[in-house]
Amino acid sequence: MKSVKVGICGLGTVGSGTFNVLGRNRREISARAGIEIDVIQVGARRDNPSCNTADVAVERDIFAVAKNPEVDILVELIGGTDVAKSLVLEAIAQGKHVVTANKALIAEHGNEIFAKAEAAGVQVMFEAAVAGGIPIIKALREGLAANRIQWLAGIINGTGNFILTEMRDKGRAFDDVLKEAQALGYAEADPTFDVEGIDAAHKLVILASLAFGIPLQFDKVFTEGISKVAPEDVGYAQELGYRIKHLGIARQSSAGIELRVHPTMIPEKRLIANVDGVMNAVLVKGDAVGPTLYYGAGAGAEPTASAVVADIIDVARVVQQGGRGIAPLAFYNAATQQPTMLPMDQVETAYYLRMLAEDRPGVLAQVSTILAEANISVEALIQKEPQQDAPQVPLILLTSRAIEHQLMSAITQIEALPVIHGEVTHIRVESLG
Amino acid sequence: MKSVKVGICGLGTVGSGTFNVLGRNRREISARAGIEIDVIQVGARRDNPSCNTADVAVERDIFAVAKNPEVDILVELIGGTDVAKSLVLEAIAQGKHVVTANKALIAEHGNEIFAKAEAAGVQVMFEAAVAGGIPIIKALREGLAANRIQWLAGIINGTGNFILTEMRDKGRAFDDVLKEAQALGYAEADPTFDVEGIDAAHKLVILASLAFGIPLQFDKVFTEGISKVAPEDVGYAQELGYRIKHLGIARQSSAGIELRVHPTMIPEKRLIANVDGVMNAVLVKGDAVGPTLYYGAGAGAEPTASAVVADIIDVARVVQQGGRGIAPLAFYNAATQQPTMLPMDQVETAYYLRMLAEDRPGVLAQVSTILAEANISVEALIQKEPQQDAPQVPLILLTSRAIEHQLMSAITQIEALPVIHGEVTHIRVESLG
Repeated sequence: MKSVKVGICGLGTVGSGTFNVLGRNRREISARAGIEIDVIQVGARRDNPSCNTADVAVERDIFAVAKNPEVDILVELIGGTDVAKSLVLEAIAQGKHVVTANKALIAEHGNEIFAKAEAAGVQVMFEAAVAGGIPIIKALREGLAANRIQWLAGIINGTGNFILTEMRDKGRAFDDVLKEAQALGYAEADPTFDVEGIDAAHKLVILASLAFGIPLQFDKVFTEGISKVAPEDVGYAQELGYRIKHLGIARQSSAGIELRVHPTMIPEKRLIANVDGVMNAVLVKGDAVGPTLYYGAGAGAEPTASAVVADIIDVARVVQQGGRGIAPLAFYNAATQQPTMLPMDQVETAYYLRMLAEDRPGVLAQVSTILAEANISVEALIQKEPQQDAPQVPLILLTSRAIEHQLMSAITQIEALPVIHGEVTHIRVESLG
Repeated sequence: MKSVKVGICGLGTVGSGTFNVLGRNRREISARAGIEIDVIQVGARRDNPSCNTADVAVERDIFAVAKNPEVDILVELIGGTDVAKSLVLEAIAQGKHVVTANKALIAEHGNEIFAKAEAAGVQVMFEAAVAGGIPIIKALREGLAANRIQWLAGIINGTGNFILTEMRDKGRAFDDVLKEAQALGYAEADPTFDVEGIDAAHKLVILASLAFGIPLQFDKVFTEGISKVAPEDVGYAQELGYRIKHLGIARQSSAGIELRVHPTMIPEKRLIANVDGVMNAVLVKGDAVGPTLYYGAGAGAEPTASAVVADIIDVARVVQQGGRGIAPLAFYNAATQQPTMLPMDQVETAYYLRMLAEDRPGVLAQVSTILAEANISVEALIQKEPQQDAPQVPLILLTSRAIEHQLMSAITQIEALPVIHGEVTHIRVESLG
């Protein structure tokens, strides 16, 4: 074999980045792969002026790439889940290895795709699907393979982290920063996927399956966005020595496996609390290694291409050397596992509570009595002096760890107190220690 | 093949950790490796009460393990370079794969060992040799394989970082903290390896070879320890918005490759500036991915075992699936490269300078004239009021980037000024941007 032959489908941001990195760093890449890697075909609806495809066959029909008998590795970078799924399954049926950056495709259809790939004896790799250029999938699947993974927590959506960072640094409101993020091109015109946590949920599901060796279960993720995080909560968090981050958290305990995406208060001294702007980071706790953290760019043409090309190099080694390669979900038996999943109302965590209370004696006693009856203690407290002409004062509490449904029931009782006005804001708190 | 058979040589801290992790996480490890991994023999001068070796053959002669025809993978955890080298070469001669945690062995004898391993068609893996449980070698060799690596900078000695952290947090002096580190077991009775940067130099050489695809060149590292870092420099760094870290830095530029270990002032807002205590972290800048950072425990029984076992799993896959595996120094052609190495006096960086100056007009003008004549500008300045009864005042400067030999020559001239008393302290400054 003189070279491994690659077909790239999709020539958008990531596709063009991949094409260009493979060209620019050809010498380094072939020395690391131990074989030349040639892009012999590109499937794209239109040309991309940032790519010089003069030496490559360009097809408008991406399925022609999947059917090209010369292609060893099909690189799926068209995005979306419908056509992308058909394309990937066609490539597998044709006996081709697949590399993809498509988190939605893997999170929602990975189980089916991996089963077909196993039957066909081909690899499906997806390092670029989570946290862009950070090699977190390789770390979980190989680097930490000695460990029982206890939990992981990740800043895995750059748009959300940019918004929360701006809110903290400049005291701005969510809507205001979101508009700027859209103008800067960080956030889509429809920002739902990013700010409501769906994108993070896709990525979390993938990380959790790799960490725990279980099938992908996108329908089991609890997802809460950041659109309701108020500037005052950002400020009180800081006063308490915390920061608010939109985290994807997966935890394995004797009770079951938790999968959740939500705004989370974490101690400001943790390294991950200091990951700002559009950057991503994933903190992983293994039983042998302890905590490890992986940080880098979570999006962008070349950071994502870095991950796509790393996968291509790994697969090129399999093409050249033979063997069945590595298990897509890290554990060869992942597909057959039937893990107990812990529903959100059973999850245990600490909480930050903010409420508007009447400024008179006995209010704190009433609130803390309700919490105490649910076996929840108050770990920290901020009570501000009343603002001018305001008959109510903000009351901020940090609670001990509690089961979510018990905390929620306590909140309902607190909200029913005549001395409490409006809703009680709650934000989950994790020490990540 | 029913299982891959492992022989462990050395049952000290890392050896016992490896033995115990392989036992405790056996189920997860075999599911990830796709095959059972059995420790069939241990070679150790004495038993370790923390390991239950009842089901394993224990040999007092470690070479018996290298010669055992049943053993597929020899795990070298005895440390040192003399016997360890003989043991590893014997194992290779016997056609066995090798996993080692021995940074000195790899840094000083890796070129010879890898050549013999290649000729014998076996793998030599050493993830645990750098930064303990952090999978940084896998990240450089595989995860970032698409990139031309521009530079890397690492906190790769936990003892040194513990000492600098304590000096900063508590304003303590070097000698004082070193004594505590020795009492805590972080530092050896002879702390030279840690505090003078030799241990970090071993690790840096390995990282640089992986990053740039060049042979290991331990004799080319510039090494400066932290024993001369004074509490006042730690304080002034903080005033200037910087922190002092003992970094291993490798950089590739058109001028050549730099390898250097020295105290470094870095902006406090960088994530790596906030890596405290005995923790390790490596920041890597690739041309496609940009900056990525890897953080975790750099030492300890089980964190190091985590890396050793990850290597065992990777090699077990090669044993089972065949193929020649991955190149030990990331590039299959690394051994044949003859890179241009940049001597320290040619390196360009910014500098922090501290001197004791007479408290009278014109002193600053004389100092800055010398710098200006060497084309070095002053980027920041602290001049303190004279302390009671002290005729001299400390003068602190941050310079622009300059070539080391030009800066050193300017320092010689400054020290010759009658208005300057004693030596000029210099600390290199890196923005790591």
